Formats: sequence, C-alpha cells, structure tokens
Amino acid sequence: MSITAPQGFVAAGLHGGVKDDGALDLALVATGDGQPVPAAAVFTQNHMAAAPVVLSRQNLRSSQGQVGAVLFNSGNANAATGEPGMADAEQLTGTLGAELGLQPQHVLMCSTGLIGIPLPVEPMLAALPALAAARSADGATDAAEAIRTTDTVRKEVHVDGVADDGTTFTVGGMAKGAAMLAPNMATMLAIVTTDAAADHETLQRVLTKAVGPSFNAMTIDGCTSTNDTVILLASGRAGVVDELALCEAVTEACCSLAAQMVGDAEGATKVVQLHVVGADSDDDAEKVARRTADSALVKCSWYGQDAYWGRIASEAGSCGARLDPALLSISYGGIEVCRHGVSAEHDEAALAEHMAQRELQITVDLGIGAGRATLLTNDLTHAYVDENMGTS
Amino acid sequence: MSITAPQGFVAAGLHGGVKDDGALDLALVATGDGQPVPAAAVFTQNHMAAAPVVLSRQNLRSSQGQVGAVLFNSGNANAATGEPGMADAEQLTGTLGAELGLQPQHVLMCSTGLIGIPLPVEPMLAALPALAAARSADGATDAAEAIRTTDTVRKEVHVDGVADDGTTFTVGGMAKGAAMLAPNMATMLAIVTTDAAADHETLQRVLTKAVGPSFNAMTIDGCTSTNDTVILLASGRAGVVDELALCEAVTEACCSLAAQMVGDAEGATKVVQLHVVGADSDDDAEKVARRTADSALVKCSWYGQDAYWGRIASEAGSCGARLDPALLSISYGGIEVCRHGVSAEHDEAALAEHMAQRELQITVDLGIGAGRATLLTNDLTHAYVDENMGTS
Repeated sequence: MSITAPQGFVAAGLHGGVKDDGALDLALVATGDGQPVPAAAVFTQNHMAAAPVVLSRQNLRSSQGQVGAVLFNSGNANAATGEPGMADAEQLTGTLGAELGLQPQHVLMCSTGLIGIPLPVEPMLAALPALAAARSADGATDAAEAIRTTDTVRKEVHVDGVADDGTTFTVGGMAKGAAMLAPNMATMLAIVTTDAAADHETLQRVLTKAVGPSFNAMTIDGCTSTNDTVILLASGRAGVVDELALCEAVTEACCSLAAQMVGDAEGATKVVQLHVVGADSDDDAEKVARRTADSALVKCSWYGQDAYWGRIASEAGSCGARLDPALLSISYGGIEVCRHGVSAEHDEAALAEHMAQRELQITVDLGIGAGRATLLTNDLTHAYVDENMGTS
Repeated sequence: MSITAPQGFVAAGLHGGVKDDGALDLALVATGDGQPVPAAAVFTQNHMAAAPVVLSRQNLRSSQGQVGAVLFNSGNANAATGEPGMADAEQLTGTLGAELGLQPQHVLMCSTGLIGIPLPVEPMLAALPALAAARSADGATDAAEAIRTTDTVRKEVHVDGVADDGTTFTVGGMAKGAAMLAPNMATMLAIVTTDAAADHETLQRVLTKAVGPSFNAMTIDGCTSTNDTVILLASGRAGVVDELALCEAVTEACCSLAAQMVGDAEGATKVVQLHVVGADSDDDAEKVARRTADSALVKCSWYGQDAYWGRIASEAGSCGARLDPALLSISYGGIEVCRHGVSAEHDEAALAEHMAQRELQITVDLGIGAGRATLLTNDLTHAYVDENMGTS
C-alpha cells in the first residue's frame, strides 16, 4: 500500500514511452477527491536543477503549498534541457491537471534518468489520460515500480502514528535511488503521504526536520543530483495531530526509505553506519564523517573487509576538523583498533567476523568535545565501476 | 642521473629490512662534500602528519633551512605511531647524521607505506652504514627505485636551466606515488636538487610557487596523505642564478614529476587534463575542477570512454561555484558537447576517437568571468578497486 495507505490518496503507474524496454516509467500520486491538500517539499541545491525541480518550486510557491497531484517519470531527468525542457514539464503538468480537474499550479513533477536529453514528450502526453484513469488506492505498487531506474527493488514504507491525544494516523512513502548512482538515473526521489491534518507551514517544518537524520544523513558517492526531491502531502482525513507525533512518524518513514536506498545502492556489498563522536562541534563531526564516507580509499577498504583504520585517520586529519592525533580512537563493531592515535591490541578474529558482515558499525572518536554526526553509507566495488562506466 | 645530475649531490638506495620481499626500501640523498646546503620544503597539511614530517619540519626550522642529507624509506609510513614513531625517526636521522658527519638537525626524513605500524627500526639502523657507504653520483637510480611502493616505474627528471646572465645550471628530481593511491603506500614524495646557488628563503619562495601548477594541480582521489613531502636542495656549485630562471626550471621539474605520477596512478587508463575557464574567480574555477576531478561518477565515465557531460554539469552545479546553466559549455578534445547548458550537435565519430585516447582534454566553460583552473587527474577503474580493497 505505502503511499496510498493513508486515507485520501490514489496512485498509478504505467509505461509512458520514456524507457525503451517498455518498463513502467510514468507514475502518479494524487488526492482521492481531486482537491489540493497542504504540501511541503525539499529540493536539490544544485545550480543545474532540472526543469521539473524549477517548475515544482514555482508551483508550490504560487499555490501557497497546495498540491493535488504529483507526476513522476523515470528514464529521463529533463535536466540541462533549457527552455524546451521547462516547456515540456509545463505542458505535462498542465495536461495532467486538466485531466484531473486541477489548476496547473497544483501539480508537481519529478523526473529521474539521463541528463541532457530532451523528454519524449509526445508519448508521455498520450499516456496521461490512461495514467489518470488508472489511479486508485491499489496503485501504490505500480507507482513505486514506475519510479525505479537501476534500483533492484521497490522502496516503500508504511508507518502507523499515534498523536498525544490518542488520534491514530498513517504515513506512507515511496522512493527511488540514492544520490547519483548509476548511468541511467540521476536522482533520489521520495514522496511521503499522510492522512494527518496539517497546514503547509507545519508540513514544511516537519519535512525539513525529517530529512536531516534520513536523506541528508546518507551518502553514496557525495554527489548532489540535479533532480533530488522529497515531497510531503497531507490529506487531513485522520484529523489534526500534534506536530511532534507527525514529525516522528514522517522521520521514521524517511529514515526507512533512506536505509532502503543505501541498502540497494548499486554494486554495494556493505551498509556502513559511520558514527563520529567527541568532535569539537557537530560541524566538525560532520566534516569528518562526510570526508570519510566519500573517500574512495576508505570505501574500497570496506569492500575488501579490511579494517585499515589508517585511512580513516588520514581523512579525519585532512578534512579541516580540529584534531589531536594523541586523542583519536577508532573502532569497528565496537572493537577498538586505534587508541589515542596509535594501533590498539584487539581480537583479530572478532574483527574479521565483524568486517565480513553486510552491516558495519564504525566509530571515530576525536576525544576533544561533544560534537557528533552519523552517516549511512556503503562501499566502492567493482560493480559500482561497472554500472557507472557507461550510459548505454 | 636525475637527483645527482646537478653538481654536488650523491645518492644511494638499498634494502634495509622494511619490505618483506627484499626490495630496495631505503634511500639517501646527500651533499657530495658532507656539508649542509640551503634547502626548502613543502609538507602535507594533514593534522595526522607522520613522524618524519613532524621531525623534518622541526629540523628545517632549527637548522634555519640548512640540510646535508635526506633519508627515505618505503614500505612503512611511520604515521599514527605516536611518541615511539617520533623516537624512531629521531634515532634514524641522528644515526645517519653521525655516519655522515652531520648534526641531527641537518638531516630530514621521508617515509611512505602503511599507516599505524611501528617502523622495523633495528634492521634499518643496521643498514645505515652500508647506505652511507654506498652514496655516490651514480646512486640516483637506486634511490629512485628504493622510494617506489606500488609505482610501476621510477619517476625521475632532469632539467637544464639558463639564467638571464647566461649561467647554466641543472635541476634534478625524483618522486613516488600520487596522493593516497594504494594499500601499500600513503604518500607522494618528491625531492628536487639543483646546483644553482640560492638561500633558504629564495628556495622556499621558488618551491612554493613550483608546487602550485604541478603537485597541487593534480588529484587522483582527493586524498591528502599523512606523509606528502616535497624537498628542494641547492648545492650552489653552478653559481647564483636569477630567481625567475630557477623558478622556471624547478617548476618544469615538478610538473614533469607530477605528470609521471598521474600517468602511473594505479589502475588508471586515462590521464585527463581538466580545464575550467570562464568562472567568476580562480577560486570558483578550482572548486569546479576539484569537484569534477574527484567525482567517482565522472571518473567512471572516463574509464568507460563515455563523454557523459551531464555528470560534469551536475558536479559544477553542486560545488558551490557561481553558475548559470544557460551559460555553461563543455567540450571533450575541443569538441563541444554542451553549449549554453544544453546538448550540442557534434561529430560523434570524432568524439569517440578522442575518448578512446589515453590522454583526454576536457574544458568546462562557465561563461561568466575570467577565472580559470587546470587539474591533471585520471579515471576510476576496476584495477583501482582491486589495488585498494586490501592491504595484504
């Protein structure tokens, strides 16, 4: 069910002529009654933001955060496509809106796929009536399927929430990708729906908080795509709930989707929880975590199941964070391999056992202050190179 | 000849018990007459700087830039080794100095190899008398050989200079590695010798300028090692030359060594000259160049001989540099594939021919201002993953 689990939403997915192989490539998430509902969104900060990102930003502003439908396509990012790309996105959302009885500004759009290629807009337009007609509470699976690119599995979530006054509500979501991972996609996209009632401003606060420990706390290859978008829609059918309860449920949904993305990152054999503690500040901890998680050398060592902490120490030392070698400690799976900047005696067999697992826990303790950060990331593998060495 | 091509220098290289396989692992570069000469150095900015870096910095300061010998070892970085690592470096340089009749502060040291492992200092100490005895004008090749780790070839250079008054002089150099590249090394090291006469301050200015367009204008994987060191020694035997002529010759030597490093980067199949022009500032151009050159996605596309400019556009858009999509142009080998932010018509066959070459020329034109930067870098390959997935 995922995105249609909360009351008041319908979805659909079908082949609309974007992907050459006939796979599902168009998806729709809409309100069940055809009326706009409060919405919020977080978009990529990339200056090369794709046409659908530019358009969705504009529509969200002019509608004052009221959205009735979101159109998705996979197989083409509609990025670096200039004015024609904007016109394509406008025509598609306008046509879909007319089909659904919505003003154009109440329709958002998300695209994912190759950059720099014009959208095949004619077959997409031709498919919109069928897409609109197919929308139903049972359409969530097709929609989640249609936004896949090189994802090996659909990414869906369903969270049941309880407000402090006992009101129950539901949060659903679907997502694809993880950062820029593979030749045929260029994005992470996620949409989260809820039947809780909340206004646009509340939803924007909730979503901004929720992306912090979820989508913004994962990194595959350090790339920020042209199309990254996260959207939150609230139908209000379950009634008003307190902001904290809503925030917790939305954050849980986002964390689940983020974990599913990292777990499905192309070519990855490891999912790594990287904890940096004891930094001078949270910012410093974040610097160490990002630098380490995005280091090709460190990522290759994880792939090789090699607890070579020297590389992590070197990245920590060169990322600009305050660091005293004599205070640095590093552990894998709770096994300390570096204490106070030098090699520490440890149980080699236990360490090898941890490194052989799919999920690694790594803690870097700078020993200076209370700053901390956690990132979810993965390894750099032969398969990653395979998947990214060509677009064809 | 390389480092002993300039008058007044001797060198040696032998096996000193660091590498398990009996390969050369100790090298010496010294003045021929056993007297200290003016010197300069540039060291890694890594807060985890290795013991030999800390010691060399101290010695250069206390000797006021006068150096008589430099000891090198490969196979062990003596990094993250704490106080014992410092004591080892001190004992080795002190013992070598005594052997050569030099005060300890006139001896520098460079190490490269694994991080976090104590130096096998006993066999190294035992080898120092033989190393000192072996020094000669013919020892340059052995020395260049002994600093190799995973380098597949020695890296040496010899430049003939002419001062504005007609004085001729010589610059020689040797180097190893390129940033942090492979499991068994952790460094780029370079030493440049000249028979030109110049004081410490002049040499420091010259070297600082020379590293800009050479070692600091290359990137393999964005890593700054714990051990990176570049040293310049001037015997003065050829007499005083003007600073500009010296700077040109030293820069030429450094650029050659840097190009040799990038060309030999483990697993690389491409050497890429990445030019960023038209940026708002040189800093902005540098940001675009670094982000692009260090992008795993972009590097994989080079390996696949795929001119997928969309990834470069995305990196340019997310690196923080000022960018207007409508002004961005990108070309490979002079063939424009993106003009004003969108795909440009081009000769596919000519493009494929360029992408198949070992040396790629890529130009990113932001179309905004006069800022520019050039980086020398390479691709991310299966072999890179192979070489970095384990330390054994």
